[in-house]
Amino acid sequence: MSPPPDAAASPFRPLSQETVARFAALLGPRDVLEADAAAPMLVEPRGLYQGRAGLVVTPRTVGQVASVVTLANELSIPVVTQGGNTGLVGGQTPDGSGGMILLSTKKLDRIREVDPDENLMVVEAGVTLQRVQDAAIEADRLFPLSLGSEGTCTIGGNIASNAGGVGVLAYGNTRDLVLGIEAVLPDGRIWNGLRRLRKDNTGYDLKHLFIGSEGTLGVVTAAVIKLFPAPREVATAFVGVPDVHSAQKLFRLARERAGQSLTGCELMPRFGLELVVDNMADSRDPLSEPHPWYVLLELSSPLAVGLDRTLEAILEQAFEDEVVADAAIAVSGDQTAAFWRLRLGLSEAQGHAGGSIKHDVSIPLSRVADFIVEATAAVEKHLDGARVVAFGHLGDGNIHFNVTQPVGADKAEYLRGWAAMNAIVHDIVAAYGGSIAAEHGVGRLKRGLLPGVKSEVELNLFAQVKRALDPKGLFNPGVLLAETRA
Amino acid sequence: MSPPPDAAASPFRPLSQETVARFAALLGPRDVLEADAAAPMLVEPRGLYQGRAGLVVTPRTVGQVASVVTLANELSIPVVTQGGNTGLVGGQTPDGSGGMILLSTKKLDRIREVDPDENLMVVEAGVTLQRVQDAAIEADRLFPLSLGSEGTCTIGGNIASNAGGVGVLAYGNTRDLVLGIEAVLPDGRIWNGLRRLRKDNTGYDLKHLFIGSEGTLGVVTAAVIKLFPAPREVATAFVGVPDVHSAQKLFRLARERAGQSLTGCELMPRFGLELVVDNMADSRDPLSEPHPWYVLLELSSPLAVGLDRTLEAILEQAFEDEVVADAAIAVSGDQTAAFWRLRLGLSEAQGHAGGSIKHDVSIPLSRVADFIVEATAAVEKHLDGARVVAFGHLGDGNIHFNVTQPVGADKAEYLRGWAAMNAIVHDIVAAYGGSIAAEHGVGRLKRGLLPGVKSEVELNLFAQVKRALDPKGLFNPGVLLAETRA
Repeated sequence: MSPPPDAAASPFRPLSQETVARFAALLGPRDVLEADAAAPMLVEPRGLYQGRAGLVVTPRTVGQVASVVTLANELSIPVVTQGGNTGLVGGQTPDGSGGMILLSTKKLDRIREVDPDENLMVVEAGVTLQRVQDAAIEADRLFPLSLGSEGTCTIGGNIASNAGGVGVLAYGNTRDLVLGIEAVLPDGRIWNGLRRLRKDNTGYDLKHLFIGSEGTLGVVTAAVIKLFPAPREVATAFVGVPDVHSAQKLFRLARERAGQSLTGCELMPRFGLELVVDNMADSRDPLSEPHPWYVLLELSSPLAVGLDRTLEAILEQAFEDEVVADAAIAVSGDQTAAFWRLRLGLSEAQGHAGGSIKHDVSIPLSRVADFIVEATAAVEKHLDGARVVAFGHLGDGNIHFNVTQPVGADKAEYLRGWAAMNAIVHDIVAAYGGSIAAEHGVGRLKRGLLPGVKSEVELNLFAQVKRALDPKGLFNPGVLLAETRA
Repeated sequence: MSPPPDAAASPFRPLSQETVARFAALLGPRDVLEADAAAPMLVEPRGLYQGRAGLVVTPRTVGQVASVVTLANELSIPVVTQGGNTGLVGGQTPDGSGGMILLSTKKLDRIREVDPDENLMVVEAGVTLQRVQDAAIEADRLFPLSLGSEGTCTIGGNIASNAGGVGVLAYGNTRDLVLGIEAVLPDGRIWNGLRRLRKDNTGYDLKHLFIGSEGTLGVVTAAVIKLFPAPREVATAFVGVPDVHSAQKLFRLARERAGQSLTGCELMPRFGLELVVDNMADSRDPLSEPHPWYVLLELSSPLAVGLDRTLEAILEQAFEDEVVADAAIAVSGDQTAAFWRLRLGLSEAQGHAGGSIKHDVSIPLSRVADFIVEATAAVEKHLDGARVVAFGHLGDGNIHFNVTQPVGADKAEYLRGWAAMNAIVHDIVAAYGGSIAAEHGVGRLKRGLLPGVKSEVELNLFAQVKRALDPKGLFNPGVLLAETRA
């Protein structure tokens, strides 16, 4: 079960016992992991990549991170940083050489400060997204980043990958939620960029360089993140629609009528709903009849503004316009949670139907439905019986255009067609002016695709920035950038 | 009327006639300005800096910009980019050597595209902010960047300086309003980064490096900017409050009650209001009695949500809490405009009271009032009769802490105390964890102050980035960065 592997053999050699001992001396014995403890961290969650590491460390302070990185720089040993190991492009997995250090942030797990007056939180990289969300709730605030793996993924990983998720429509991507960061640079120096101001024009905005850099410019160790007023009202509907263009019209209508209160607009196809209902506990179809497509609409507001009435008005208009066939409105928090489980369970549920070839793409908002129709036709023409599961974030144009194998096909053989399938879908993405890496990042998986979608000028700028900050090319080599220097 | 000048003499020599002729050959004759036409572009708007230029060019296309920059790079001639010449820190003014090229973007003045469906606009650097706002209104949309000089400043300058203004509270700074940019790099290559997607994780986010870089990394020639739904309801109040802590409490209350509908929260002192009313046409005090401080509150929404009632409820509660003494609510668009003129006229009005020493600072939101009280006391102790005009953006913590000379003092002598006054105020800013350059940038004016407020690590990162993108140090030398190489 693997997409085309990186072609180049690793330039790195296994670490010697002596080298390992030098690093171990910098940390407590429990912070250098034995092989057994390290094993789960060396395999990518879908099994796409199996790595080796010369050393797996779990530093507990930014000072310890700096010590490890300083020595790694001195000895020219590459470093791969890992948070919750939930990334989907192999950015957190070392190569197969055994010559890399895997630096886990999971013991950098303190919430340093929650300040509801300033609407911010200072949090270390290894804190899980769920803990961040919970700490915000405890302070009667909202941290709006939300995605399927939130119980396991870490805020450091979210920052390194500029994670997206279901709240982007209203609150933006991770980079829009970060006021400042602290990072250990490739030479081991600590950069304290933990700014907490809403306006600060004192030079280049370095935090944005680190956000989304996938571990290639150093180790993000902590961040100041923005909090928002807690929602007081939430209104949620699970809506059946006759076709994907109707789904897009419903989004547009909801955006017009609800404005900033439209905080969720998720798309899923009938086949996707069936996968969830058939395979995931505690899930059932909220509507009495099947529909070709579904939209999960969520309105929320920190003020009492009568969102129930707004949601009803949207749906009434949509019925009148014949873009909606049926809808269920959640009448309790439990029901709201059940609707969201249907949507968030879809990533996992696909595993029950055999091999799945993935595309994490974004498309200009007004062309999403056209794209889905065209790409679906192309994929079905390419492979008889291919079952498209196109779902995701209608409100920000990010569609997970996944393709499940034909019924009864051989999984391994199906997955050998990964690159060919990608080529078909990505060509259509390009024709729509879209992105082939909307929210999961580039990692190892899509690194080879970048030269096809980026100008030489832009790739050259990437390389200039990389060389400036990591001249030895030690941070996550093989990830994101087309070339690195050993 | 000048703060301490840059200490270093210019390393650049006047351009020869032969060199000028080579550049002129790249452009039409009307795009190489004569001395008379160029003169107003060589003086900073407050007269703080008077520059010279070896050549002033007004290219009309990105291709022409690239030609000029390519030759400048070949001949190692420095380039200063200028938009509307409204910057307040000297970032748009060449030095006194006559050895620099002043590249004006004002003829890059096309709005390439307005797409209300995608909520975006593609606009060239030289378009004025006002034209951008008007084009958005014409498409029934809002471009929320708004500041005093909007009739003259350009979107390119806004991007280069990451301009702030009065809408930041609800919509963020310029960098939050940009989806993509096009730039000519220091070696003359064109980078087309005109992305128009809401999610795109394909490598380093280079646009954020250029935004706020004050012309030091190349020339921004165009941008894709975000549009928002046009407001349908606007409710505005001009409020008299007994002290600055009450103003802060009013902000907090308004934020709680109005949520995202609170789109403006501006502070001004009595002395500031008097300066405007006494010196600006069409202005009068909306309240019958004087008050020590004023707050301009604006609520707006793209939906009909009854903002008048919300505003009234906020003010009723504020009266009850005794944080408000009197308030006028605008009953017409004209009255709303009149309230805003009082606030936006303040920058200009200060010129009528003699010398003014400026501080563009930001403070954590919950400490703004404390800061103003402490800094005012320190300034008054430092100079008997100094008149503080602290005003600005209560909602994002950005205060223009300006100090007008004592009545009858000698203006030139007063302004010679610029650096000493700065030192007093900036020390207090530092103690509050604030920024000494909140929205105007660093430019020539504050370049010397950066080493006092930035870590060596951060300054070193700035230099690494600068060297990577502009190895010859030709873009806006003397601005922003502590060191540049000729």
